[in-house]
Amino acid sequence: MAEVNRRIVLAERPVGVLKESDFRRDDRPIPELEAGEALLETVYLGIDAALRTWLTTAKSYFPPVEIGEVVRCAGYGVVVDSKCDRFHEGQLISGLTGWQDYSIIRDDGFSNELLPDAPMRTAGLLSGGASGTTAYVGLYEVGRPTEGETVVVSAAAGATGSAVGQLAKIAGCRAVGIAGGPEKCDWVVEQLGFDACIDYKADGWADALKEACPDRIDIYFDNVGGEILDRALGGLAMHGRVVLCGAISIYNEAHKPPGPSNYLNLITVEGRMEAFNSFAHWDRFPEITQKLLGWYQDDKLTAATTVIDGLDSAWEATNMLFSGGNRGKLLVQVNDDPTEDG
Amino acid sequence: MAEVNRRIVLAERPVGVLKESDFRRDDRPIPELEAGEALLETVYLGIDAALRTWLTTAKSYFPPVEIGEVVRCAGYGVVVDSKCDRFHEGQLISGLTGWQDYSIIRDDGFSNELLPDAPMRTAGLLSGGASGTTAYVGLYEVGRPTEGETVVVSAAAGATGSAVGQLAKIAGCRAVGIAGGPEKCDWVVEQLGFDACIDYKADGWADALKEACPDRIDIYFDNVGGEILDRALGGLAMHGRVVLCGAISIYNEAHKPPGPSNYLNLITVEGRMEAFNSFAHWDRFPEITQKLLGWYQDDKLTAATTVIDGLDSAWEATNMLFSGGNRGKLLVQVNDDPTEDG
Repeated sequence: MAEVNRRIVLAERPVGVLKESDFRRDDRPIPELEAGEALLETVYLGIDAALRTWLTTAKSYFPPVEIGEVVRCAGYGVVVDSKCDRFHEGQLISGLTGWQDYSIIRDDGFSNELLPDAPMRTAGLLSGGASGTTAYVGLYEVGRPTEGETVVVSAAAGATGSAVGQLAKIAGCRAVGIAGGPEKCDWVVEQLGFDACIDYKADGWADALKEACPDRIDIYFDNVGGEILDRALGGLAMHGRVVLCGAISIYNEAHKPPGPSNYLNLITVEGRMEAFNSFAHWDRFPEITQKLLGWYQDDKLTAATTVIDGLDSAWEATNMLFSGGNRGKLLVQVNDDPTEDG
Repeated sequence: MAEVNRRIVLAERPVGVLKESDFRRDDRPIPELEAGEALLETVYLGIDAALRTWLTTAKSYFPPVEIGEVVRCAGYGVVVDSKCDRFHEGQLISGLTGWQDYSIIRDDGFSNELLPDAPMRTAGLLSGGASGTTAYVGLYEVGRPTEGETVVVSAAAGATGSAVGQLAKIAGCRAVGIAGGPEKCDWVVEQLGFDACIDYKADGWADALKEACPDRIDIYFDNVGGEILDRALGGLAMHGRVVLCGAISIYNEAHKPPGPSNYLNLITVEGRMEAFNSFAHWDRFPEITQKLLGWYQDDKLTAATTVIDGLDSAWEATNMLFSGGNRGKLLVQVNDDPTEDG
């Protein structure tokens, strides 16, 4: 165990793309435990778009991160000390670690043991909540696909999108991804088994999307907002559903862009556009993560990850989400992974 | 019975506000009946916004009205001849009469007997489908209010809106209307029993709406689209719902305006925006209209109507929907009402 707790705190409220000066290191002693607490050493940070919104003053299901506070972030770690009945040394845990080496965890529902039988780095997609459970709840509980339907998902090479398309295939649907660049699109089709993937940076992508969805779109799982959402709304089939998971294309915008004018098509197709918070289904995470793990073990679900090294790289890693640099779940490795060799 | 069937057909596809030259009279002989048919003499036309969309080539649950065709329109009439087992002379019927004196009806689900015990001119709100059933299905089945919630409805003085607010009160909710001009707003509060009504033509209406909804908006029933929809989206409470019934403010626009940028708030509040077609619940209309009639008889539901005289006024009456001239259900009286004196 290290001598200090390296911590990255918010220095200035960021505008647009994150800059190094928006954050600063503020190392502190490793916290002392009180009764009911355990100490978690962070192994991986799970970087996702919600984190970017917590850095603003926008209303969210969590309060904004204040200036001087450790950046709030989901993470995966190992228990190194415990005064809490529920946790014991060596246990692998998912929780809100924040951008730091050591965090205090409690038996409060936010910290949960990872399932065994899968590498720790798959946790962000499988047992650790966040992306896998978000994909599951959003697609299965909000979108409610039936066999033979067409599911379109944006940010298809991202953590949630990569899982959504694979879950669509498991449900017997046609899975069409939208991603940036031919390499990513090839990866989505060849490695993840989507039926098609449209490169939204290519000319004529909207026509290509139409061609890839000959029976129109039954479910559009939106991770990006903006023009892609608008096009998908315009391409909905009767009783089409839009699952609103995020709007990454505009998280960095200082001013709100216009909304999707094709929302009117909801009236024509008697459609539904619905947002959700997968954490509202927290009590079902054990059941959901067991299912995800089962599909992983049966080779029906690839748990793709991109791992960036070092706590000090966390802000740059976060920008990768928006520049589209990652494949699958984006992790920042903070300390050694006890489930990996060497 | 008259000698001819006066008919108003579409002469040109209208752009923007309807003009006299968009239509022409094309009188024909009264149609002969074949087996399985009955002849309906139109008493009232029920004018609603769906009619305006049928005059465009926009996709809808009905095909567009073609040039030279009688304008499609819901209406209420009396059977004057029958070769159909289901219908007999003197029966009062709601159906798709069109803008004409006489229409052929069949036992095909589109034509239904009006409930007795209420004046014929209440049919558009009570037993005749359309506005009352639209309000019922949209508010109760799509919005799903619970006691104590705040329901906001736009076009509150209109046919559907006037019913929505009253149904909200019946469900134990706070009912807040939005309407144009102080007279209409007073009428909505005093005659229909809404808790408040905001004049969207007055300065500061958005602040007034906020004040009228101290616990924010649980359900917004949208009849207008545009800026009002956007503001309501921004004012949603957690788990707020937007029921999309129409977008009357933009039906006449040649170009689609931007969509509601506050759709993003759906993500924050884990909300839902959903459209519906009340005709998809056709099989439940007998049950629903019986309930509406019951509330009417118990003085819990005012069936407000505005009646314009004469078939040739139908196009001008339709424009009243958009200029906001009507209170409650807008009817055009085409022939004598057998349920009214004189």
